Amino acid sequence: MAAPIITLITDFGLRDPFVGIVKGVILGICGDARLVDLTHEVTPYDVREGALALQSAWRFFPPGSIHVAVIDPGVGSARRALGLTAGGHYFVGPDNGLFTFALGAPGWSAASIETPSYRLPAVSGTFHARDIFAPAAAYLGLGVPLERLGPAVTDPVRLSLPGCRLEGDELVGEVIRSDRFGNLLTSVTADRVHEFAGAGPVVVTLGHRDVGSVVKCYDDGALGVPTPIMGSSGHLEIFVRNGSALALLTPGLGTPVRLRRPESCSNAPSRRAR
Amino acid sequence: MAAPIITLITDFGLRDPFVGIVKGVILGICGDARLVDLTHEVTPYDVREGALALQSAWRFFPPGSIHVAVIDPGVGSARRALGLTAGGHYFVGPDNGLFTFALGAPGWSAASIETPSYRLPAVSGTFHARDIFAPAAAYLGLGVPLERLGPAVTDPVRLSLPGCRLEGDELVGEVIRSDRFGNLLTSVTADRVHEFAGAGPVVVTLGHRDVGSVVKCYDDGALGVPTPIMGSSGHLEIFVRNGSALALLTPGLGTPVRLRRPESCSNAPSRRAR
Amino acid sequence: MAAPIITLITDFGLRDPFVGIVKGVILGICGDARLVDLTHEVTPYDVREGALALQSAWRFFPPGSIHVAVIDPGVGSARRALGLTAGGHYFVGPDNGLFTFALGAPGWSAASIETPSYRLPAVSGTFHARDIFAPAAAYLGLGVPLERLGPAVTDPVRLSLPGCRLEGDELVGEVIRSDRFGNLLTSVTADRVHEFAGAGPVVVTLGHRDVGSVVKCYDDGALGVPTPIMGSSGHLEIFVRNGSALALLTPGLGTPVRLRRPESCSNAPSRRAR
Repeated sequence: MAAPIITLITDFGLRDPFVGIVKGVILGICGDARLVDLTHEVTPYDVREGALALQSAWRFFPPGSIHVAVIDPGVGSARRALGLTAGGHYFVGPDNGLFTFALGAPGWSAASIETPSYRLPAVSGTFHARDIFAPAAAYLGLGVPLERLGPAVTDPVRLSLPGCRLEGDELVGEVIRSDRFGNLLTSVTADRVHEFAGAGPVVVTLGHRDVGSVVKCYDDGALGVPTPIMGSSGHLEIFVRNGSALALLTPGLGTPVRLRRPESCSNAPSRRAR
Repeated sequence: MAAPIITLITDFGLRDPFVGIVKGVILGICGDARLVDLTHEVTPYDVREGALALQSAWRFFPPGSIHVAVIDPGVGSARRALGLTAGGHYFVGPDNGLFTFALGAPGWSAASIETPSYRLPAVSGTFHARDIFAPAAAYLGLGVPLERLGPAVTDPVRLSLPGCRLEGDELVGEVIRSDRFGNLLTSVTADRVHEFAGAGPVVVTLGHRDVGSVVKCYDDGALGVPTPIMGSSGHLEIFVRNGSALALLTPGLGTPVRLRRPESCSNAPSRRAR
Repeated sequence: MAAPIITLITDFGLRDPFVGIVKGVILGICGDARLVDLTHEVTPYDVREGALALQSAWRFFPPGSIHVAVIDPGVGSARRALGLTAGGHYFVGPDNGLFTFALGAPGWSAASIETPSYRLPAVSGTFHARDIFAPAAAYLGLGVPLERLGPAVTDPVRLSLPGCRLEGDELVGEVIRSDRFGNLLTSVTADRVHEFAGAGPVVVTLGHRDVGSVVKCYDDGALGVPTPIMGSSGHLEIFVRNGSALALLTPGLGTPVRLRRPESCSNAPSRRAR
């Protein structure tokens, strides 16, 4: 069996030694694990932000990879500790909705991590990444079957994640995140855009601002002008070439994004009247 | 022999390529080293902060792990370069007190890293992590005995680290650090609290503010209210549930923390008189 | 064959999962790659900054290492994707000058990465680190010869990087970067200083400020006083002991740095006249 890949996503930051400690525990159990950081800069306690980041990343790892996600404001409370398999991957973390995206397709199964021999001997009330999730992931990496971690879970917590919807002749979503480059990620996916407009052109409005037609690459944007593009995560983004759409537009999360087909626009009587 | 684990803790930050260079040197000597970052965000030159972080982390790695710690304001001066073994682990870094915590138990031994063949051929005056500590750690990873690195050291520099003490009927420590979540770590350890109060209740004062009784998990704290908890590192912490005790209270490092048993409080004549 | 080392340098930051995704793609192709981060905190779009960081780091990795560098404002445009071998190492990234430093010596060769089987099946217009550069590096790690990645490139883009020059009896360079400690790196290299003054003393001026003679280690600087030193990257630096030259002097990038031999100074009539 190849050395298992174990990825980590947390809100622990990199200033404290928490992430290193988690890795120490994993390597103490599964010495040949290949550890990969997804990010540890999730906003503290922001489960939704962590879920979106993991959702955009996990598919690019090989089947059998184990993803440990710990954004866990309820650590030490009654919330369950979850092991989950879906889509040929494994997921380990608190049962607070982090893995909602993996529950859309059939064939997943989950366990509540309770078996004492797959935890550290002493479990604290404040650091389950170290005491519960790291050991569980490491034992999965050793080949322990998921169902041995504890009783089956059939009702994991699900988050309500932002999507997009038809409103009249518009496809409407919202801003869900910005990235390091100040690109604004929206909840509008490539699949929904294709359903909406096929390969035809669409024009985009962010809040009350027209940001024009979707382009193919960043170089197609004019300098200083916010422009829509289908981003690498399969979501519509608004960018400013060699600049920051976030800094220019300062929209809040949840700012609506509206797409329309140019012809539906030119046919609209109320617009013609202008 | 299993592939050696080499951890790294520095004040180098992650913006410059210093940490990557250190890893390149290690992998050039010990190609199968498994490298783990503890943190590189120690405040520049803050030896005590680095020592506290390493102290909280090293035990969670398997025996035989090699910990490279470089917070080194005296790089290039007459300070010694230290290799140390204690508690079944190895430690490599400047002799400035970083490893004080490992010198409390008997059975440690140390060497001054001076053997030219275990250094890079050219040793700069400014980057001993690259030129001295990385090679030393890599050769330890290859199985070179510690004593071959150089002459024995019997008097490594020791830091005075904050502890806690009895004052009348109170156990008194201080704030030593805050973490990413704004939790305030104190110098009061679980062992000392157990000696002081057994399993009985204690109430805590931070500076002049009463912060109530110690709780078991973060969910037991009221929103917006600073609350004490026994943290995952074995130190008493003050937290604010889903918030930041640091932002709320803004105490300086060294702010006193006082614990008392509730009964000793109610028996104290001077307090009754109020 | 030993497990290949693949280093990564980008302007992606660590908050988004981009770097993790790139690693997932690499490990999916070349499962035993040893991944090392150089830095991901290059200023967004700053190709020169990335080139300087990689230039200072790559030599410290073993021969055969593969360095992936993605600072790529032109992603998705007509700019080529480059695979390059030079000095016994491999380099992969956009053809925008990032690897200029490797083109100074003879014997390099380069290819334009175009072969579809060495890319991901779907290539986006916005994330070539994932879709093109990660697979190319992984296939190089598997032993695929460089020339199979695509047609030969004989004219890679070259950046104009700052150097130093003689002006009368002075050696003149400029500030090119600051590091985490506030040290100011200059374009003046140890080789050029040796040509200029042999092993003799030199005195240094930064902008209009005399910063004295070059010292051997940081401990030789006076507290609070900016002082020149030959830094670990082989470039002259200005530092403040246990402080920050950047914070004290706030020079811009490009601020001139002038070196002169003390005797040439004392012979200068205009200075004697004072």
